[in-house]
Amino acid sequence: MKKVPHRLYLTEDQMPKQWYNLRADMKEQPEPMLNPANFEPAKEEDLYPVFCKELARQEMDSTTRYFDIPEPILDMYKIYRPSPLIRAYNLEKALGTPAKIYYKFEGNNTSGSHKLNSAIAQAYYAKEQGLTSLTTETGAGQWGTALSEACSYYDIPLTVYMVKVSYNQKPYRKAIIQTFGADVIPSPSDTTNAGRAILESDPNTGGSLGCAISEAVEKAVTTEGCRYVLGSVLNQVLLHQSIIGLEAKAAMDILGEYPDVVIGCAGGGSNLGGLIAPYMQDKLLGKANPRILAVEPASCPSLTRGRYAYDFCDTGKVTPLAKMYTLGSGFVPSGNHAGGLRYHGMSPVLSKLYHDGYMDAISVEQTKVFEAAVFFAKNETILPAPESAHAIRAAIDEAIKCKETGEAKTILFGLTGTGYFDMTAYTSYHEGKMTDYIPSDEELKIGFNGLPKIPGIQE
Amino acid sequence: MKKVPHRLYLTEDQMPKQWYNLRADMKEQPEPMLNPANFEPAKEEDLYPVFCKELARQEMDSTTRYFDIPEPILDMYKIYRPSPLIRAYNLEKALGTPAKIYYKFEGNNTSGSHKLNSAIAQAYYAKEQGLTSLTTETGAGQWGTALSEACSYYDIPLTVYMVKVSYNQKPYRKAIIQTFGADVIPSPSDTTNAGRAILESDPNTGGSLGCAISEAVEKAVTTEGCRYVLGSVLNQVLLHQSIIGLEAKAAMDILGEYPDVVIGCAGGGSNLGGLIAPYMQDKLLGKANPRILAVEPASCPSLTRGRYAYDFCDTGKVTPLAKMYTLGSGFVPSGNHAGGLRYHGMSPVLSKLYHDGYMDAISVEQTKVFEAAVFFAKNETILPAPESAHAIRAAIDEAIKCKETGEAKTILFGLTGTGYFDMTAYTSYHEGKMTDYIPSDEELKIGFNGLPKIPGIQE
Repeated sequence: MKKVPHRLYLTEDQMPKQWYNLRADMKEQPEPMLNPANFEPAKEEDLYPVFCKELARQEMDSTTRYFDIPEPILDMYKIYRPSPLIRAYNLEKALGTPAKIYYKFEGNNTSGSHKLNSAIAQAYYAKEQGLTSLTTETGAGQWGTALSEACSYYDIPLTVYMVKVSYNQKPYRKAIIQTFGADVIPSPSDTTNAGRAILESDPNTGGSLGCAISEAVEKAVTTEGCRYVLGSVLNQVLLHQSIIGLEAKAAMDILGEYPDVVIGCAGGGSNLGGLIAPYMQDKLLGKANPRILAVEPASCPSLTRGRYAYDFCDTGKVTPLAKMYTLGSGFVPSGNHAGGLRYHGMSPVLSKLYHDGYMDAISVEQTKVFEAAVFFAKNETILPAPESAHAIRAAIDEAIKCKETGEAKTILFGLTGTGYFDMTAYTSYHEGKMTDYIPSDEELKIGFNGLPKIPGIQE
Repeated sequence: MKKVPHRLYLTEDQMPKQWYNLRADMKEQPEPMLNPANFEPAKEEDLYPVFCKELARQEMDSTTRYFDIPEPILDMYKIYRPSPLIRAYNLEKALGTPAKIYYKFEGNNTSGSHKLNSAIAQAYYAKEQGLTSLTTETGAGQWGTALSEACSYYDIPLTVYMVKVSYNQKPYRKAIIQTFGADVIPSPSDTTNAGRAILESDPNTGGSLGCAISEAVEKAVTTEGCRYVLGSVLNQVLLHQSIIGLEAKAAMDILGEYPDVVIGCAGGGSNLGGLIAPYMQDKLLGKANPRILAVEPASCPSLTRGRYAYDFCDTGKVTPLAKMYTLGSGFVPSGNHAGGLRYHGMSPVLSKLYHDGYMDAISVEQTKVFEAAVFFAKNETILPAPESAHAIRAAIDEAIKCKETGEAKTILFGLTGTGYFDMTAYTSYHEGKMTDYIPSDEELKIGFNGLPKIPGIQE
């Protein structure tokens, strides 16, 4: 048998030249987004005030299977892609498992995460349309960093609304975003109506992604030549992130490998949707039947404990409504939750696939996640982001199960990024100060009670 | 002409299997280390109390041209190597230069720098010898991080003496070293005689690498089964780091390229000595004549303003004496100096080569260095370590010169690592608070006055 290298890099020639649109192969489509003004299905044009045109087109296009990646985007991708597919020899050995563990590592760029894949695309299309500025939100900071890099390269001014609790806890994240020339504003702020309203009702709030989204959208639609961009949840983002899965599959094909299980961490779904794309295609087309596993934090369990319902994508309720697994747009994860994966909802595409039984989901507690992160770091010498470590936790547990059953499963997981900016959380874990938090059913009920009522659709 | 990819990764098969020992091709050898007790040339056995045996052998061996890299070390290398050779297309375009700029990027591992190359080797040999603990020092923190990773993997307890000013300024560096299970002690400390003596004479000192070395060495020689390891300066470290240059040359050979100028940042010389090794060999053997350029901080200018003299490698004067370019073992760079490259001396091998005219050296001021770092980050989307940015500064200046003269030079520089743990310095730069510091001749004289007197050798 051919020896599998530790790291397999595709050559530039082997890099995918197209993104894959999962919706084109879905037997049933996700429910349409609804215009919040009249609860009618949103049309492409309805999105123009918020998104740039090409991105609105990608958002609504459920039939085009492959989108050519424009050459200038491919050129930027080549600065840090193809990303390596890594065989976790050391981890396997340390676990004494018969399983073969592979991971696709997306942390080899300055943003430290996969977020750059969509950031480059979105900044590029904005530049092409002649937009003069962009806004976005960021929670843990990976998206803000990635977009600031892309906007710096394309020379587009960017304003980042950063969830206040992250802004205060992660001064280095703020600093790196500023290094790339973007403005960073802690959210909620007094620069928008949405922010002021939230501050008025709760002056001491640490903010939330939903709230930061409201502010960024408001700023975009009230500023000439400005649009809003989002790093997860949206169909367009899953499209761009399909590069992860396409590369992973191309690399595994070279090795003659096919995963029995594909594992990704899940917040809004950007990494998960990208990683699993070609494998989900195989599943949808009946070509193969790998297990697809989403891993989310127990403190923000949208898939495993949320409702499949129409909800706002933001706290301020200015965005279109999406049918998705959600904890309610007012849900804010407990302050002890470290890292990202703190969004109240989940990508409508992934929500639909989960709802229809094409994928599984589990939730894990953060002390278990950090335990896995440290074990992984010591053996694989990559310090993982807390978000990524959710997938590591599940992959390790799967490999341990293989040890017990003697099954030599092939496991593929997504290592979305590095944890350099999360040392405060690591320190808290080392010092035994990290705690777990699982919201009670009563707490979740508050969020569900806030779900919108839509005559004839959702009462 | 073949299109040069943005990133060229050698395959595992193409990875060098041997380290290259530059001394084997030097017409004149560096002066021998002297035993501080009697000023006699140090013998291999003299080093046994401090270094493990295989490393002492490597330290003293000036005739073996190639050392086989043990398989277990190659296996660890494969977790993050081969590192990419990157063509800086974006940087070239932004500068409008006819020059071709290549860089060898060593930051794709959790230590974030090239230091891991020697850390793995040193930890491996210590384990092979059955040692039960190791000590070291770290300044900016890259070496401490790298060694803690390697020691964690080989399961050897490690104590890191971290220069106090870094310990306080870089809590995240400390945290990552602790993540890998090492003890971190701010130096000077009260755990050693050397530390107590320095604290007594200057209770408020921020420490220095020289002082941290004294403490780590003292701790090693007074602890059963313990040895000391060092991340730069030594011949053994240059040997291990030759993997950088060997890979770079192999990759450039594939591209049919040969550099007109090879640029590396220089502190103790570990990266520079490793990067230039095969090119310096060509020079020594008369096969080619690339310009070799060392870039050091204006605030710690050992090559450009130091004396070529015998000096202690540490402040406590417990180590052997080495003939090297030095600012005096008592020299401490100004507190406003950000990042590493703060050692008072320079690798004896590089010192000799510089003295004999085989390489050039320049010094650069830190605001100019950070200006280059930010420009590079925006165009190449890698946030460089401040140390690495010294080489970037010189490479950019060289490329600008090419623009003026119309010469299409091929430039190769070493990008030793990433700047994720240096955001405080980046913030200070952005806020316009960063200043430059060039020591006066009078200040340097104080250091030179402290050089040891050696009867018959150095009066």
